[in-house]
Formats: sequence, structure tokens, C-alpha cells
Amino acid sequence: MTFRSARATARTSSEARAVARTQTLLKGEHGIGTVRKTTLPGGLRVVTETLPSVRSATFGIWALVGSRDETPSLNGATHYLEHLLFKGTQRRSALDISAAVDAVGGEMNAFTAKEYTCYYARVLDTDLPLAIDVVCDMLTGSLILDEDVDAERGVILEEIAMTEDDPGDVVHDLFARTMFGDTPLGRPVLGTVDTINALNRSQIARFYRKHYDPTHLVVAAAGNVDHATVVRQVRRAFDRAGALTRTEARPVAPRDGHRKLRAAGRVDVLDRRTEQAHVVLGMPGLARADDRRWALGVLNAALGGGMSSRLFQEVREKRGLAYSVYSYTSGFADCGLFGVYAGCRPSQVHDVLKICRDELDRVAREGLADDEIDRAIGQLSGSTVLGLEDTGALMNRIGKGELCWGMQMSVDDMLANIAAVTPDDVRSVAREVLGQRPSLSVIGPLKDKQANRLHEAVS
Amino acid sequence: MTFRSARATARTSSEARAVARTQTLLKGEHGIGTVRKTTLPGGLRVVTETLPSVRSATFGIWALVGSRDETPSLNGATHYLEHLLFKGTQRRSALDISAAVDAVGGEMNAFTAKEYTCYYARVLDTDLPLAIDVVCDMLTGSLILDEDVDAERGVILEEIAMTEDDPGDVVHDLFARTMFGDTPLGRPVLGTVDTINALNRSQIARFYRKHYDPTHLVVAAAGNVDHATVVRQVRRAFDRAGALTRTEARPVAPRDGHRKLRAAGRVDVLDRRTEQAHVVLGMPGLARADDRRWALGVLNAALGGGMSSRLFQEVREKRGLAYSVYSYTSGFADCGLFGVYAGCRPSQVHDVLKICRDELDRVAREGLADDEIDRAIGQLSGSTVLGLEDTGALMNRIGKGELCWGMQMSVDDMLANIAAVTPDDVRSVAREVLGQRPSLSVIGPLKDKQANRLHEAVS
Repeated sequence: MTFRSARATARTSSEARAVARTQTLLKGEHGIGTVRKTTLPGGLRVVTETLPSVRSATFGIWALVGSRDETPSLNGATHYLEHLLFKGTQRRSALDISAAVDAVGGEMNAFTAKEYTCYYARVLDTDLPLAIDVVCDMLTGSLILDEDVDAERGVILEEIAMTEDDPGDVVHDLFARTMFGDTPLGRPVLGTVDTINALNRSQIARFYRKHYDPTHLVVAAAGNVDHATVVRQVRRAFDRAGALTRTEARPVAPRDGHRKLRAAGRVDVLDRRTEQAHVVLGMPGLARADDRRWALGVLNAALGGGMSSRLFQEVREKRGLAYSVYSYTSGFADCGLFGVYAGCRPSQVHDVLKICRDELDRVAREGLADDEIDRAIGQLSGSTVLGLEDTGALMNRIGKGELCWGMQMSVDDMLANIAAVTPDDVRSVAREVLGQRPSLSVIGPLKDKQANRLHEAVS
Repeated sequence: MTFRSARATARTSSEARAVARTQTLLKGEHGIGTVRKTTLPGGLRVVTETLPSVRSATFGIWALVGSRDETPSLNGATHYLEHLLFKGTQRRSALDISAAVDAVGGEMNAFTAKEYTCYYARVLDTDLPLAIDVVCDMLTGSLILDEDVDAERGVILEEIAMTEDDPGDVVHDLFARTMFGDTPLGRPVLGTVDTINALNRSQIARFYRKHYDPTHLVVAAAGNVDHATVVRQVRRAFDRAGALTRTEARPVAPRDGHRKLRAAGRVDVLDRRTEQAHVVLGMPGLARADDRRWALGVLNAALGGGMSSRLFQEVREKRGLAYSVYSYTSGFADCGLFGVYAGCRPSQVHDVLKICRDELDRVAREGLADDEIDRAIGQLSGSTVLGLEDTGALMNRIGKGELCWGMQMSVDDMLANIAAVTPDDVRSVAREVLGQRPSLSVIGPLKDKQANRLHEAVS
């Protein structure tokens, strides 16, 4: 199949070159897929993971643009644009787009983050050509009409209002502001009511032209897919839009950055009439590609990653002080965050914060016990493999790998990295990360006296 | 494998009878699993779906008990008990339970509904014996200690507070109350602060003994599992707990009921300082096993099931009045609900309700266009097949099938039922369901004048 389609597409020298650029990056076995990559002339990367045992396929296009690329007045433009790409192209109305995927029972959606945006459709493998056609059309042929900008403004304002009604969500936005301040990484992905009301068509259209060049995109497909067929269909779709004419263009490199994060001891409180106080206590973490991330992952699992973790045991299991309590890491190109979330009734917030802070300090001082580390390594390994049965998760892994890392890591290598974490590695990263002075974000109905005491948790 | 294990377990006459009761209910092919069932002496049913192409397995135990089985003063007991089953057995502490599954990267959880409760663990196939051992131990050997009842009371009060902070969730509880009033189906699964504070150990322990008899349970496993091996392990675990001694006991039949639902024109408003008004407009629907459910499913998909559906197009796509708008059906043993949810800023609530009501009325009068029906049939068929790649979804399907329906339906039969829906079927069920006078539940900051106008939507 590969050979035949290679011959069929190798009609011109640039096409021949494109075919020549196809590489097998990872060989599959035991339910793990084979990962292949082709770079098309015009600088468009196509990666696929072939897993013939499934009946579905997920097709996605990743763009190297996120809210981090916005100026203050453009805040929310990336996400606004994401919505507008569903509103119609030269060939399709908004209804045509959604009806095409609905008609085959597919799931189509998109997500905008601080450093990237992704559009995807999950369909039965037999419907993959349709998914490729629709998603490529959306990305290359969006009209961005004035009337759609106006109608969608209302939808986004509703999305902001809906998010505001979920304090467990808002507190994470608040924590980003606490840690990053009024900078691109500190501002919300959705933008604000003010910026959304102020954005106009020409600003958004300019943003589209600038950030959706094929050199900034990665196409990813996973499931029961044939690499050469996907490449051929993607190429045809982009060619039709005239998007691959700069034949010598090269893909852009993964995002770089030089953000130094020094927030410490900050406290932000948003007064809301909620039932629970929602808190995030945290500190600077590690950049996405930091070598110590495997040790931090083990640390995070043991500290607040599961029901047997220290925070779950101390806060919920032994004392019944919260329903939801967990820790997490998030990594960007050049910096990261480590945070602990808890939701509890306002009268218990000081107890909960004290337990969390004590645990962070204790682990920073003493590291973890060997059995905790063994369990955390088992947890990460098992969940890594369990996470690979969904074609959407596979598509995310290879698409994000290509866009954000410029590489693909095999599952075996991931498991080997996890298994290689030693108690010393964990102690060292615990000292470095958890040993920092934390900051705190809180949403809830805290009276002045209570709010003043919050500083104890970060002193 | 089947033959060998059948011989190995057939040591006594009751065991031989158990083996004789194993049936193959559905034959698998093309990525669809084979479904087998064994009824053990003691009345315990074990169903499995074997899908050798995956590497994971999900193991679950379903109990025929939900909040519908609670008296007013016991409201919340089913869910409270669900929490307590994680707190320890004769053989394991709460930490032992969670650590066992965390250590292999598994996902363990439970959910309580109005008519059933389910406990499950999703693990790598090689860890299935561990999952069986832990979940069976939790179900058969729970201690329900006084001290755990007290600690967990705090956790559940936090869960209630957390739910209260999510108005998009609370409005569905409110809608149940609007439609069912102060009856078992109208009361919240979580209970209330008052009932949770009042429940004591002996009430909950009595509830446990009454509702967790093996005749009320269904064991379900799906993924890369071997039926005979699962049956043998489950039997050993239940035998160890002395739970299968009433050898002549027979499984209880699926739940029956005689609830007549006549709510019409009711309006409930909960005043909250939220950003959005959250509304559910709806009416009586169909019981779970009603023959017209396939036509109602098609109707629901076309009306509010996807991005190309009428409500999404009219409310969001054309007018930008909401971010989230959809319709849904829920079916119980003897009755059901059909509802439309929307979240929008309070100033727009009357416009949104008018559009939704007009659309319900129009479809009740005219039915749907042929192309809408074709698309909805395609949507339901595709999403049905796409929904079968996850072993958790498979386990839910066979477990719930056994407990709530007493039967297993093949995917081909489901697809045939969907494909057989005609425009006349849709018109008929639309007239019957959507033609009823709706009721309305609203959460949001509505002023008196606004609140009074809400009655227009149900007049």
C-alpha cells in the first residue's frame, strides 16, 4: 500500500521530494502503533500512528499559536479565532461543517491553550476521508465574515460567563495570574469581557493569516489509518487552497522562551458567594522538556496524584475535610507550575492549607519513602499504557510531540524514563521545587479576618 | 481455555450446575466482543465481554439499589454507602484498597444513580486478578465502622457544597424535583445537608445488608478477559466472604414500577448570584424499555444532540445566545424525562426559552424533515459504534443490560433498530412527547418581574 501510493503521488520533483521525506519514527508492536512522518513541500508536517486493531480514527491539526502570543489588547483572539473557524469556508457553511461530521456520528471539537491550538474529529475509520476534508477546509479556507464575528462574540461572552459560574475552574485562571502577573502566560485563554467586546474582524483575520501558515501547523492522525493515504488527502486539500506554494518553506522549530518565574509568597483572593472556598497553593515548576520532569511526575503522583497519595489521605481520608484535593504539574516551553488544589467549606480552609503546606515542606525536607516511590512509578507506568487505547489520546500525543517537542518518544522509552527515577532524583527535585516559597490563590466567601490569615500558608 | 477451566472448577454438584449455566449471549466479530454469562449458586450473575484486541480490562459490580429506594429520612444513604465501601474491609484498610489499584496505574471509582450503583476498576489486562480481588472484597467485606461514617460525613458534605457551586449541575437536580416532586425520584442522589447529618451507622449498615445480597448484584468484566477465569476468581472471592451459601437463591428480576408522571406547566426558580441563568425546559419522556425509544433517540439527536441540531443552530449558531444548549432523554424503569438545557445571561433567558419552546412546538406539530432524520440516524449509529472502543463503556453496557434489562442486545440489533426508525415513527413520538405541556426549572439571578415572565414558556 505504501509503495503503490508513493508511486501514485510521485509525479513531480517536489512531490518526489515530499515522499522521500517520509520517515518511520517509531515501530509498533503489542498494541502500540507505528509512527510515521512526512514533511510536505510548503513546510507542512504530517504525522500518523497506525494501530490496525481499532475501528476508529482521530484526525487533528495543531497550530503553534496560543494565548501566549497575544498582546494585551488581543487577549482572547486565539480562542475567538478557534470558534470562527467552525463558522464557514468558501465551500461550506457552518451547518455544512457540523452536519457532515454529525451525519457519521463523529465527534468534532477544538481546544485553545496558552501555547497551541488543536482542531480534531474522531470518526469511524471508513469516514476518515470526510474528516480530513472538513478539518483541512476549516483550517485553510475560513471566511471570517463580519456577521459571524458578531454572532460568535455573544457565544464567547456566554462561555466566559459559564466559566465564571465554575469556581473550581476560575481558581486555576486566578493562580496563573498570581504566578505570572499581567503577562501573556498570566492572562486567561478566553480573554475578558472587555477584550472580547473590543476585538474586530480585521484584527482576528490578521491573526489568522499570521499564525495559520502551513509551516506553523502539524497534521496528526491516529487509529486505523494508512500513512500514505492520509498524506495524499491532506496534500490535496491544502493544494486546493493554494496553501503549499512556497515549496522551499521549512517547518518552524518548537517554541522557545526565556521566561523566568520568581513569584513567591503572593496571595490573591477573589471574594465570591460560593459554598466552598477553592484554593490553589503552588510554586514555579519545570519547563516541558526539563530532564527532571520524570522525577517530578513521580513526586506529583505520590503527593497528590491518586487516592493513596499523601494529600488525599491526609486531607480527605483521615479528616474528611475536602471532597476534591490533588496536585498537578503544568509545563510550558521555558517554565512551569506545580500546584495543589483543594475545595472545602470556608471554615476549614486554614486547616486544609496548613495540612497541604506541612506536607509540601515535609517532602521538600525528607523526600518520599521507597514504597511511595515504587507505587508512584507503577501508577505512572500503568496509566501511561492505559492512556494509549483511545485514538484521540494517540493523536494528541503525536501531534503535540511534533509541534511542541519536535520529536516522538516511544512508549518503551517513556516507561524506561519513569522506571529509572531514583529516590535521590525525587529528593533532589522535591527540594528544588517544593522547597520554594509558595503562592496562593483563593476564591470564596472569606471574611477579612479569615482572608488575612491566608498569608500564614505562604509565609 | 474454557473447557479446561470448566473441568477445573466442576468439583461439586452445585459448581457443576454453575458451569452448566454459562451461556454465550452474543458472538463477537469485527472488533465487537463475545458476551458470556454465568449464574453462580447463590444467585450471583457474572457477564463478560471478551475483546482480545485490547490490552486493558474493566471490572465492575452493579447493585440494584439507588436513591429511588430511599425513604425521605434515608435520602442520600445509597451514595453514603458507596463512599463507605472504599473505607476498608476485614482484609484491607482504605489505604490498602486505593494503594493496590494506584500501584498498577489503574482507575477505580464508583457512581450512584437513582436506580443503580456501580463500582469499577479499569486496569491493564495482566492486573485484572488484582482488580477482581479488591472490588469483590469491598463489596462483600465492608466494615462500615463508626469512625469512618463520621469522617466520610465531612467528605459528603463537601461533595454537596461542591455540587452547589456548579449551577449547570444543580439545575438538573432541580428539574427532577420540578417533575417528580418530593418523591424518591425527585430527591437528590447526594441527599441533603440535613439528611446526611442525621444518618447513622446502623441505618447505613442495615441498608448495606438489605441491598448488597448477591441476588441483587451483577458482576461485569470487559476487555481482554477470559470468561471462565473471571467466573472462577469472582466465585472464590465471594465464597471466601461466605456470600454464596444460599445455593438455591435466584437473581432478582429487573426493577419494575408504576410511576405515572403528570407534571405539566410547573415553574421552579432558585435565586442565585450566578453569571448565567441555567434552565431546563422539559416534559415526561419514555421508560427505559419503551419500544418508541429508538424514535425518541433519533428525535433527540436532530433536535438538540449535536452542532447541526435545530436548537444548536437556532440558539447558538444563528443568534449567539448561548454557549451550551442541548436536549437529552433519561429513562427509568417505568417513566422518563425529556429535557432541553441552556445556559445564557439572565437578560436573554426569555429569548432563549421562546426559541426552544417554539422549536419543541414546531417539531410536535410537523415532525422532522427527511434529511434531518437521515442525519440523526447516521449520528446515532456512528456514535454507537465509536462508543464501543473503551472497555469501561463495554463493561457499563453489559452490566447495566443485565441489571436493568435482564438481557443483552447485540450492536447489530441496536443499529438495526436505529436504522428502522421511519419519519412516521418520529412524527408520532414527537406529537406524544413534545406535544405535552412542558415544565421549567431555572437557576439564576432573576428579578421578580423577569421570574414572573417565565410562565410564558410553559403556557
